[in-house]
Amino acid sequence: MPAGAVQPFWGQKTFCVLTGASQGIGRRFAIEFGRKFAGGSVFLLLARNAQGLLETRAKVLEANPGITVVCTPSDLAKEDAPAFKKIIESSLSEAKVSPGDFQVAFIVHNAGSLGNVGQSVSELNEVEQWNEFLALNITSTSVLNSEFLKVFPQGSVPNRTVVNVTSLCAVQPFCSMGQYCVGKAAREMFFKVLAEEDPSLNVLSYSPGPVDTDMTVTIINNTKDVKTRQAFIEMKEKKTIVTCEQTTEKVIQVLANKKYTSGQRVDYFDEGY
Amino acid sequence: MPAGAVQPFWGQKTFCVLTGASQGIGRRFAIEFGRKFAGGSVFLLLARNAQGLLETRAKVLEANPGITVVCTPSDLAKEDAPAFKKIIESSLSEAKVSPGDFQVAFIVHNAGSLGNVGQSVSELNEVEQWNEFLALNITSTSVLNSEFLKVFPQGSVPNRTVVNVTSLCAVQPFCSMGQYCVGKAAREMFFKVLAEEDPSLNVLSYSPGPVDTDMTVTIINNTKDVKTRQAFIEMKEKKTIVTCEQTTEKVIQVLANKKYTSGQRVDYFDEGY
Repeated sequence: MPAGAVQPFWGQKTFCVLTGASQGIGRRFAIEFGRKFAGGSVFLLLARNAQGLLETRAKVLEANPGITVVCTPSDLAKEDAPAFKKIIESSLSEAKVSPGDFQVAFIVHNAGSLGNVGQSVSELNEVEQWNEFLALNITSTSVLNSEFLKVFPQGSVPNRTVVNVTSLCAVQPFCSMGQYCVGKAAREMFFKVLAEEDPSLNVLSYSPGPVDTDMTVTIINNTKDVKTRQAFIEMKEKKTIVTCEQTTEKVIQVLANKKYTSGQRVDYFDEGY
Repeated sequence: MPAGAVQPFWGQKTFCVLTGASQGIGRRFAIEFGRKFAGGSVFLLLARNAQGLLETRAKVLEANPGITVVCTPSDLAKEDAPAFKKIIESSLSEAKVSPGDFQVAFIVHNAGSLGNVGQSVSELNEVEQWNEFLALNITSTSVLNSEFLKVFPQGSVPNRTVVNVTSLCAVQPFCSMGQYCVGKAAREMFFKVLAEEDPSLNVLSYSPGPVDTDMTVTIINNTKDVKTRQAFIEMKEKKTIVTCEQTTEKVIQVLANKKYTSGQRVDYFDEGY
């Protein structure tokens, strides 16, 4: 590469952590991102569901046999900093590599929960339910992100990229989706501050659009709001709902083109990225 | 009053809950709001600091001897739904009144903490510190709000008004203020959803501007960010920092004029409200 040229994002020797990798969007991200990593890359897949993780792993290796895929079943909401440190370091040991061996250090915060969609926010009065929701969607994201950046500090690799999977719910209130809106708004702000504080990072909040996953089914089955239910049923029937494949293709392109400013949100439906 | 006329907000027989009432903006809100309540109103003041609450109470009664002021020292982050229910109901019993006796049911979510301003968000890796921060700034707000609205359900009083004290930090990332930004963004979204779900409520997120309180001193003393420190020192020196009196006057006017849409944020510096 000529000096001063921008390093392409894909096709590099990459260390990537992906949360929520056992199903849905996470699984499709794993397969398609993994396909684009250079040989010798290491992919650390996290989720609670061990069986789902192994199935994702098999598909990733089918798409790209030249990389190492480490699966660590983990309930992110229950881990602390030492646990996350160990998970990341163990994956490096298992692959017999060091942080400095990579061109890209990449973390994708995809795990998240819907929270309570059966009640309006004026009914959310259970402390324990809030604690569980916030532990997964805010705290674990922050703690994992911190440990990842300690393993890959500034200067350790040419490119450190952080992707936060967000939602339209981060910027627009939706009836009966209160906790989800709160969690996504909080997370998006967290990553905005991260980008502001560390200009050496490449931070993207990517909103995948309304994607056809188990989460959508949960919304249809449990939402208290008739309009929300109707909207999702209609998208499924009319096939205007976004597929995991479509949204994965989009985020791959967004990361390749890098037309966003670090910290910014980009939605599946946004043009020009 | 002629039928169909809009009920004025101030001067009514009001039941008001105010959190964080022992100092700073909360104390000034208590005095000036209390001054504007009709005789027979009940003011429930919450905060951890019992002595501070009593001092606030004395000042409120000096400004308006015709109202009942109930102080309940409470660490909001440690209460649950039954505790909040009891706190609200006890204040009604103490004043020998029922919810239906009031024209306005008013809650002001002013309590909040700065969180960790000594570290960047990439360093926030302590689960317990996050738990404490989120318990106060998100969970307790939701649970108290829920219990308040159960005591004052739709139709129980002509006007139910909810004020969330927010900050510029809810919509703009600031270095070294990550947790505060996250908490304020989350809370503002919570109240947007509340407004969306219940059009019978009057919901306002009020951003008081950079106010000269103990919180400002804490920022100056502890922030990791040189620019943030400098900005606050300069505001104090040049006296461009907002006083508690100024911002209280503004929010009183904003509530009286009601030119905002329910769920909206209004900042001290916003004109036309």
